[in-house]
Amino acid sequence: MALIVHKYGGTSMGSTERIRNVAKRVAKWARAGHQMVVVPSAMSGETNRLLGLAKELSPAQQTPAMLRELDMIACTGEQVSVGLLSLALQAEGMDAISYNGWQVPVKTDSSYTKARIQSIDDARVRADLAAGKVVVITGFQGIDEDHNVTTLGRGGSDTSAVAIAAALKAAECLIYTDVDGVYTTDPRVVPEARRLHTVSFEEMLEMASLGSKVLQIRSVEFAGKYRVPLRVLSSFTPWDINIDEEAKSGTLITFEEDEKMEQAVVSGIAFNRDEAKVTVMGVPDKPGIAYQILGDVAEANIDVDVIIQNVSHDGKTDFSFTVHRNDFQRTMDLLKNKVAPATGAATVLGDPKICKVSIVGIGMRSHVGVASKMFRTLSEEGINIQMITTSEIKTSVVIDEKYMELAVRALHKAFDLDADNSPVAENMS
Amino acid sequence: MALIVHKYGGTSMGSTERIRNVAKRVAKWARAGHQMVVVPSAMSGETNRLLGLAKELSPAQQTPAMLRELDMIACTGEQVSVGLLSLALQAEGMDAISYNGWQVPVKTDSSYTKARIQSIDDARVRADLAAGKVVVITGFQGIDEDHNVTTLGRGGSDTSAVAIAAALKAAECLIYTDVDGVYTTDPRVVPEARRLHTVSFEEMLEMASLGSKVLQIRSVEFAGKYRVPLRVLSSFTPWDINIDEEAKSGTLITFEEDEKMEQAVVSGIAFNRDEAKVTVMGVPDKPGIAYQILGDVAEANIDVDVIIQNVSHDGKTDFSFTVHRNDFQRTMDLLKNKVAPATGAATVLGDPKICKVSIVGIGMRSHVGVASKMFRTLSEEGINIQMITTSEIKTSVVIDEKYMELAVRALHKAFDLDADNSPVAENMS
Repeated sequence: MALIVHKYGGTSMGSTERIRNVAKRVAKWARAGHQMVVVPSAMSGETNRLLGLAKELSPAQQTPAMLRELDMIACTGEQVSVGLLSLALQAEGMDAISYNGWQVPVKTDSSYTKARIQSIDDARVRADLAAGKVVVITGFQGIDEDHNVTTLGRGGSDTSAVAIAAALKAAECLIYTDVDGVYTTDPRVVPEARRLHTVSFEEMLEMASLGSKVLQIRSVEFAGKYRVPLRVLSSFTPWDINIDEEAKSGTLITFEEDEKMEQAVVSGIAFNRDEAKVTVMGVPDKPGIAYQILGDVAEANIDVDVIIQNVSHDGKTDFSFTVHRNDFQRTMDLLKNKVAPATGAATVLGDPKICKVSIVGIGMRSHVGVASKMFRTLSEEGINIQMITTSEIKTSVVIDEKYMELAVRALHKAFDLDADNSPVAENMS
Repeated sequence: MALIVHKYGGTSMGSTERIRNVAKRVAKWARAGHQMVVVPSAMSGETNRLLGLAKELSPAQQTPAMLRELDMIACTGEQVSVGLLSLALQAEGMDAISYNGWQVPVKTDSSYTKARIQSIDDARVRADLAAGKVVVITGFQGIDEDHNVTTLGRGGSDTSAVAIAAALKAAECLIYTDVDGVYTTDPRVVPEARRLHTVSFEEMLEMASLGSKVLQIRSVEFAGKYRVPLRVLSSFTPWDINIDEEAKSGTLITFEEDEKMEQAVVSGIAFNRDEAKVTVMGVPDKPGIAYQILGDVAEANIDVDVIIQNVSHDGKTDFSFTVHRNDFQRTMDLLKNKVAPATGAATVLGDPKICKVSIVGIGMRSHVGVASKMFRTLSEEGINIQMITTSEIKTSVVIDEKYMELAVRALHKAFDLDADNSPVAENMS
C-alpha cells in the first residue's frame, strides 16, 4: 500500500504485445493496493526514426530555433506511448489516464534537447491517484515558462521518472529495463560478473558515468538529491511473477551509508572504450593555461572526460585529456591549428586506441592500498598504465585498448568480485 | 502584402522531399511580402498507423476515457509535421516557429475525437507574424478547458486552417490538396467535367456533403460563418510557379450572392454510392413516430442521411431513410428486432444497392423547372427514381446503383456542364 513509480524503457514498450504485458504488470501492482504512476519511454526505434526525418530536412540543427523544433518532433514518441499504455491499462480494467509533461506540468528551463527540470506540480496527479486512477506520464518531456515543449535529452525518461517520484514522495521508483540489475562489471566481458543487490548512489554515479550504462546519470543524481529509493530491475520476467519476489529483485540504489559498512571495498569494475586521449606537450605553466586549452575545446562542443596535468619542469607542463573517439580528429585539428600556436605549445600528441578502466567502491574511502592493488594487478598482467586519475570512490587508469578485457577480468578477480557467496551479490542466473 | 493561411494535406506532407517543396512554396509567398501561417496535416498514413496501434490494444474504444487516449495518440502526427515543416522552412532561410493547438491555444469542447472549436487566441501568433516569423500550427488539434488534448475528427485540419484564418482575419485561406479545384462532377465518371473558377459556399456545402470530398464540410461551414475567402488548389504544381498565377488557380469559394448571378443554374453533379436505403412500412401516422424510429437508430450510433416520409393512407405511413452501407445490416437488425415490434410496423424493407445523385446550384433558387428537367433526363435514360428529396439549392434522387455513372453523365450534359466556354469554368487540363 504505497505510492510507486514504474519506468519502462523503449524495449519494454517495443510492440503492442509488449505494451500489453507492461499493462498487466502495472495492473498487478495496482490490484495489490499500490497507487501507481507509470513513466514509459517511446517505442524502441521511434525517437531515432523521428530524428532521422528531422536530419533529412535540417542537417545542421544548431540554432535554438532548430533545436526547439527537434524537441517538438522527438517528444511525440513518448506521447504515443502514454496513450497506448493507458488504452492497454483500460483494457485490463484499470481506470488509467495519460499526461504529457506540459499537462502535469513538468517545468524545465529552455535548453532545448537538454533541458533541466525546475519543478513538478503534483496536484493533478495526486487528485487522480486519490480517485483510484493509474496515471501514465510521458518521460523525456517538459515545458518552459513560455509554454514551449522541451526534452531532457536522450535517456531523459529515467530522470523524468525519478523527478516525478521525488515530487510525489513515492515509496520507490522502479526502473524496468532490459538488464536485470547492476553488475560488478559487464557480464559480456567477465562471465563471472555478479548482480549487486544494493549499490550506493555514489557508486552508481561512478559506474554510470564510466560506462555501465544502466541508468541515465542525471536520474541517479536526482535520486541522490531527493533521496528517492531507486531500483533497477528486468522487464523480461513474466508479468505475473509473484509481486513480493519482484519487489525484491534487481538492484536497489541506496543512500544509507551504514547499510554499506559490511560491503566489499570495491563494488564494481567499469570501463569505456569510446575514448581517445590527447596531450598538449610543453605548454608554459602559468595561470589560465588550462582554460586557454579547454575553452576552445568546449566552444567547439567537444565533451571532455578525464583531465590530467602533472607538475611542471622548467616552466613547461604537459596537459592531457580524453574525448569521445568520434571527436578525436576534430580535437586534434583544433589543438594543432589553434590552441598550440596560441599557447606556444611544443607538440600535440594523440591516441584513439585507448580505453579507460575504473574500480569503483564506497569502501575505498576507508581502505588504504586499494589503488596500489589495482596497479599491481595490472603490472602482473604486463599492462602499461598511461594515465591515472582518482576520486574518493574510484580509481581510473587509461591503458591500451587491446588490454581492456584482460584488465577488467584480472581486476574483477583480484578484488574478489568473482566470489560465489558474497553477502551482497549473487551469481548471474 | 496580406496575411495568408496555407493548409497542406497529408499527401503534400508525405515525405521529407515533399515537405521541402512545401517549405519552398511557403517561402516564395513570404518573400513576396505576405505574412504566412501554415497548417499542415500529418504525413500521409501516419494517423492510420497510430490508430492501428491503438486498435490493437483497445478494440472497443467507446468510453470517454478511451477516446481521450485516442486523441492523445492521433494528434502526434500533426505535431511531427509542424516540427519538420519548420525545420524545412528554417533551412530555406525563413524564421519559422511551430505550435501545437494547445500552445496557441485553440480551445475546444471536450468531445474527444470530434471536438468543436470554441475560441482561438491570436495574440502569440500575431506577435510572431509582426516579428517576421512564418508560423506553423498543427491542424486537427485543440485543448479543452481542463487542458486535455482533443482532436477535431478526421479531416479536421481543413477546419483548423479556416478557423485560424478567421481568428487572424486572413485575406485568404488556401487549401492545397491533391486535386486542383472543385469540379462540376467527378472527372473519373465524366471525363468532360470542368473545374469551377468560383463556387458559392452554399453550393460547396451541398457538394461536400454529397460526395465531392474535396474539403471537410465543417471547414466550409466555418468559412461561411466567418466569411473567410477559401481557395482549393493543387499542391502538385511546381513550387516555383509564378505566384500571381498560383494565387488565381484552383477554385475560390465565395460568399457574395451578386457575383453568382451570371452563373449557370446548376453548378455541379454530386453522387454517393456508399449508402443503403431502408423503409419501415405501415407505421401508425401519429406524433412522435419519427423520433420513435430514429431515436433507436441514433442511439446505436448509426448516421442517417436522407429521410423521407410521405403522406399517410388509412392512418399508416411509410418511413424511409438512408444509412452508410457499412451500417446496413446493423440497421436492418435493429429495425426488425426492436423498432418494428415497438411501433407496430407491418414490414421492414431494405436495399444496399442504391446510390444517390444530386444536382447542386445556387441558381436553382430562381429558376423553375430544374427538378423536372432532372427527372425528365433520368426518365429518357430509362432510370427509375426510388426516392426524391429537395432543398433550396439541390435536388437529390436515390436510384439503383448500376445506373449511377449513366445518370451522372446524362445530367452533366443536360445541364450544359460539358460546354467548352462557360464563363465560370474551364476544361480540365
